[in-house]
Amino acid sequence: MSANENRHIVLASRPDGEPKSEHFRLEKTAIPTPKDGEVLLRNLWMSLDPYMRGRMSAAKSYAKPVEIGEPMVAGTVSEVIKSNRPEYVPGDIVLSYTGWMDYAISNGSDLRKLDPKQAPVQTALGVLGMPGMTAYLGMRNIGMPKEGETVVVAAASGPVGSFVGQYAKLKGCRAIGIAGGADKCKYVVDELGFDACLDHRDPELATKLAAACPKGIDVYFENVGGKVFDAVFPLLNDFARVPVCGVIAWYSEPSSGGKDRTAEFMTSILRKRLTFRGFIVWDFAAQAGDFYREAGQWLREGRIKYREDVVNGLENAPEAFLGLLKGKNFGKLLVKIA
Amino acid sequence: MSANENRHIVLASRPDGEPKSEHFRLEKTAIPTPKDGEVLLRNLWMSLDPYMRGRMSAAKSYAKPVEIGEPMVAGTVSEVIKSNRPEYVPGDIVLSYTGWMDYAISNGSDLRKLDPKQAPVQTALGVLGMPGMTAYLGMRNIGMPKEGETVVVAAASGPVGSFVGQYAKLKGCRAIGIAGGADKCKYVVDELGFDACLDHRDPELATKLAAACPKGIDVYFENVGGKVFDAVFPLLNDFARVPVCGVIAWYSEPSSGGKDRTAEFMTSILRKRLTFRGFIVWDFAAQAGDFYREAGQWLREGRIKYREDVVNGLENAPEAFLGLLKGKNFGKLLVKIA
Repeated sequence: MSANENRHIVLASRPDGEPKSEHFRLEKTAIPTPKDGEVLLRNLWMSLDPYMRGRMSAAKSYAKPVEIGEPMVAGTVSEVIKSNRPEYVPGDIVLSYTGWMDYAISNGSDLRKLDPKQAPVQTALGVLGMPGMTAYLGMRNIGMPKEGETVVVAAASGPVGSFVGQYAKLKGCRAIGIAGGADKCKYVVDELGFDACLDHRDPELATKLAAACPKGIDVYFENVGGKVFDAVFPLLNDFARVPVCGVIAWYSEPSSGGKDRTAEFMTSILRKRLTFRGFIVWDFAAQAGDFYREAGQWLREGRIKYREDVVNGLENAPEAFLGLLKGKNFGKLLVKIA
Repeated sequence: MSANENRHIVLASRPDGEPKSEHFRLEKTAIPTPKDGEVLLRNLWMSLDPYMRGRMSAAKSYAKPVEIGEPMVAGTVSEVIKSNRPEYVPGDIVLSYTGWMDYAISNGSDLRKLDPKQAPVQTALGVLGMPGMTAYLGMRNIGMPKEGETVVVAAASGPVGSFVGQYAKLKGCRAIGIAGGADKCKYVVDELGFDACLDHRDPELATKLAAACPKGIDVYFENVGGKVFDAVFPLLNDFARVPVCGVIAWYSEPSSGGKDRTAEFMTSILRKRLTFRGFIVWDFAAQAGDFYREAGQWLREGRIKYREDVVNGLENAPEAFLGLLKGKNFGKLLVKIA
């Protein structure tokens, strides 16, 4: 990287089904100059998250899609390089939303100053950031687990799923994880303290899930969809709650090819008095302060654990992201940029 | 009917799909004699409701099914004939849950005394009873309509739908009804004050519904399912709420035969942050007092209207019920027994 080079990774084209590296393109521009009221940021860490798959599609959603030729969006942790704002000085570390790039300009409205003494700064992208907050707020507002209930979550070794299960344990629930492979399942049980963890690739998943949930399922934190949903649905108890925060399996494989289950689905919602509710973390933005306070304390007390999967170099972000969609990461996937 | 004859209508067999008259059988026994602590009731009015279709099936649900050979269940308004309980005297009129029969015994625990001076006693089976309360509590707790929002409900001339739409109007919403035929639609708009009403048999239902809801749909009170659901679903706005209290169209026609829409359904729940929640009226039993007070006042003030469709004679209940499932009734369907 030359002295005045700013790399961006842009959306080259929209995937129809599974994204591939050809859908991304690395571009280079000059490092921008901040105007009055702006700061220049150098990205240190970048978060890769499943929601980015949704932004690659043109479908109407809760956020507008990334335009073709525009940089991919991302939460980032950055260092302030130049500041034309009184509240920031060079060297400050901030949480930012700059995207897949080395340098960016901000007017300050989307920044939150981080204190490196409180926690490693990149945790602001994981356990103490959007993924952790998604788990916390979805469970608190929709899942509402009660002592003795059974909570199921997929991607259980990832930053959202691992928080969901640990939150369930803190509330006195039975926590069942689903993850990809024996290593992740072992980590979920041995390190995170879930009661059991099943491999989603296991052809006997449905049978084993039923065995792991002898009293049925009271909360299913939906972050994957697909076959896991199919295994969970018949096990939902009366009055079960399903916070829906991700359906990644259905983005790339939109139909099982089977017969329509809408009638079965709606009939079960009625008969079992189920609640399904979609949400994104910002729907509960007013409770962010509660999350920072409570999750920060749990982290300091060692009651919530987390794991990071770090990829070095912005140029490796597309490959890492494609791996994320296939479950190749193990823990919160981060790109170390500088 | 002879002097000591008590007619019951029992479930003769379980329907597979559409119920027919052969699934019912009229039986005769002697009028029972109340023991200590019991009262003998003579049924005056009996309610026919779509939920009874569910009780004819053996499928696990929120209530246990009617057994083959047992009387069909029903809410009833009865006169106390003999009383071995201090709180009741002959001539008292009570709301009861006796079933499809002339006479019944009660231990008093399921009775509520009615005051004929407050409202016609049979309204305890309709606008001031379970159907009205279903509408009120579903809207209050799940639909939560806000001023300026659009509310859609089917079976809009029926006892639940008509209350839902009028509740929406009382809350400052746009209310769109769906009903079977021009007469019902005219009644829903002209008498009940809905903003529009569409015929569910109209082949252009989806197009016309979209035109009637130019700002989309914020609350869909689901009491039918089937083609109405299909027309409503794409029009749901971000943060729309769907109280699910009936899926009658899907009982007899469980699949559209088309491809599976689970992925589409769940993806929309996420993208639009939708809430689907099944309920039955007793889930909110603690709020029954609020309903009686508020709905009673609305009725006295003429702010809630209702319509009854009265069939004479217990022996005509099966045919009337089969007609209800086909939408042949116009207003709250009641059987006048004595």
